[in-house]
Amino acid sequence: MTNKRPYILVTNDDGITAKGLRILIDTAKKFGDVLVVAPDAPQSAKSHSITQAIPIKIDKIIEEEGYAEYSTSGTPVDCVKIAIHELSNRKFDLILSGINHGANTSVSVLYSGTMAAAIEGAMHKIKSVGFSVDNHDPSADFKDVIPYMENIISELIKKELPKGVCLNVNFPDVTKVTVKGIVAVKGADGVWGEKFVKANDPHKRNFVWITGALTNNEAGREDTDLYQIEQCYATVTPIKLDFNYINYLDELSNWEFNKL
Amino acid sequence: MTNKRPYILVTNDDGITAKGLRILIDTAKKFGDVLVVAPDAPQSAKSHSITQAIPIKIDKIIEEEGYAEYSTSGTPVDCVKIAIHELSNRKFDLILSGINHGANTSVSVLYSGTMAAAIEGAMHKIKSVGFSVDNHDPSADFKDVIPYMENIISELIKKELPKGVCLNVNFPDVTKVTVKGIVAVKGADGVWGEKFVKANDPHKRNFVWITGALTNNEAGREDTDLYQIEQCYATVTPIKLDFNYINYLDELSNWEFNKL
Repeated sequence: MTNKRPYILVTNDDGITAKGLRILIDTAKKFGDVLVVAPDAPQSAKSHSITQAIPIKIDKIIEEEGYAEYSTSGTPVDCVKIAIHELSNRKFDLILSGINHGANTSVSVLYSGTMAAAIEGAMHKIKSVGFSVDNHDPSADFKDVIPYMENIISELIKKELPKGVCLNVNFPDVTKVTVKGIVAVKGADGVWGEKFVKANDPHKRNFVWITGALTNNEAGREDTDLYQIEQCYATVTPIKLDFNYINYLDELSNWEFNKL
Repeated sequence: MTNKRPYILVTNDDGITAKGLRILIDTAKKFGDVLVVAPDAPQSAKSHSITQAIPIKIDKIIEEEGYAEYSTSGTPVDCVKIAIHELSNRKFDLILSGINHGANTSVSVLYSGTMAAAIEGAMHKIKSVGFSVDNHDPSADFKDVIPYMENIISELIKKELPKGVCLNVNFPDVTKVTVKGIVAVKGADGVWGEKFVKANDPHKRNFVWITGALTNNEAGREDTDLYQIEQCYATVTPIKLDFNYINYLDELSNWEFNKL
């Protein structure tokens, strides 16, 4: 019976035409019925943003037995919400996001639309994982990650994750190196050091392009993703959003907020 | 000497024309030299997104002794990065974000551009705070929050915050109730329950608008922001991003990732 197969949502932030998404779809189909809901254009670095002020366009691309594909004008998180609330006919067993063209290591998790989709999935109590490869080239072929992705998906189907936790899987540049294996490590503490390239448009108005490089604050620390990717290992990191820094609540209670 | 005064960045996500921003600017000017860098259009719910694929337009609006004002076509986080790297002449002592038209309590911190700007500030080791009022009306007058904002800014100038921590300050709807005081509490655990309103454009294409309501998973819990806002208190919550869920690393190490 079809409904006994796992029901899998596939999404990404590079958009519906990305090569990485196509590999992930083909892999997902081996494990279950698949619904693809992905942005109709690139949505990199959109973080957890949602589209509030304007409506979101939804296009049906394919609908057949056990497989359907939609694109939307929304962000990756919009895609997950629309898939869950509008386009699915039963509860998802898995959400697979990616394969992202570019690593989502260290603090990049915060900016990544790919990882935001996985985090949103975990918030909806669905087992979710984001896959990324350390190569930004849209034409790069990520086929070498398939056996490892299959292992992760197999395990994810069998295992439970703690409440609110999703997985962040990063591969080294598989177009250049052979993956030595997967290790479970934390994301390195890091910060993006921005540079801005200035330019003027034809009307002499001021523009800047953002660029920059990630600074690893834990360089040399073996139990971090940045270190292991350099050693040609793939990394898997448990991700859970926690904003509240309750350790500081007592101290903060002593601030003089209330004198008027 | 002008340079002895605190140097304060003011930004928001409702955009450069928002009434809430204007009240925050006037308050900031009492404490130091002020640089305003805010989006040239509303950027609500943009979370931590940055503008990568296209250049960002920067418009100078005002530049005078001790005060300057710019708008950009970027997100709130873009505004903070551009302010720090391109538009400031010295290190900021404070970043003030808001006053947001609408509360940023509970899990809304994750979607909020206002809070993303404050979080980005903390990542750059600058004392940062986001202010929000539980009223979405763009014409609402938030003047009643001024004495409390002044207290918080005074304390923030005197005190240190832990590494990576910023403050999230939420006020009840001050157009309807009198604030009873400020309490330091954690953000309530909650989740947005989305609903989508369907519509067709004139060409019969499918669109959806997102709507929905926040579900409070900790209803009745007194040490949370949602509870205290209902009791007409303002809340201050220490926010620190932590993605790594290292408690699960040992268990995850036992997954069978590596059989090929």
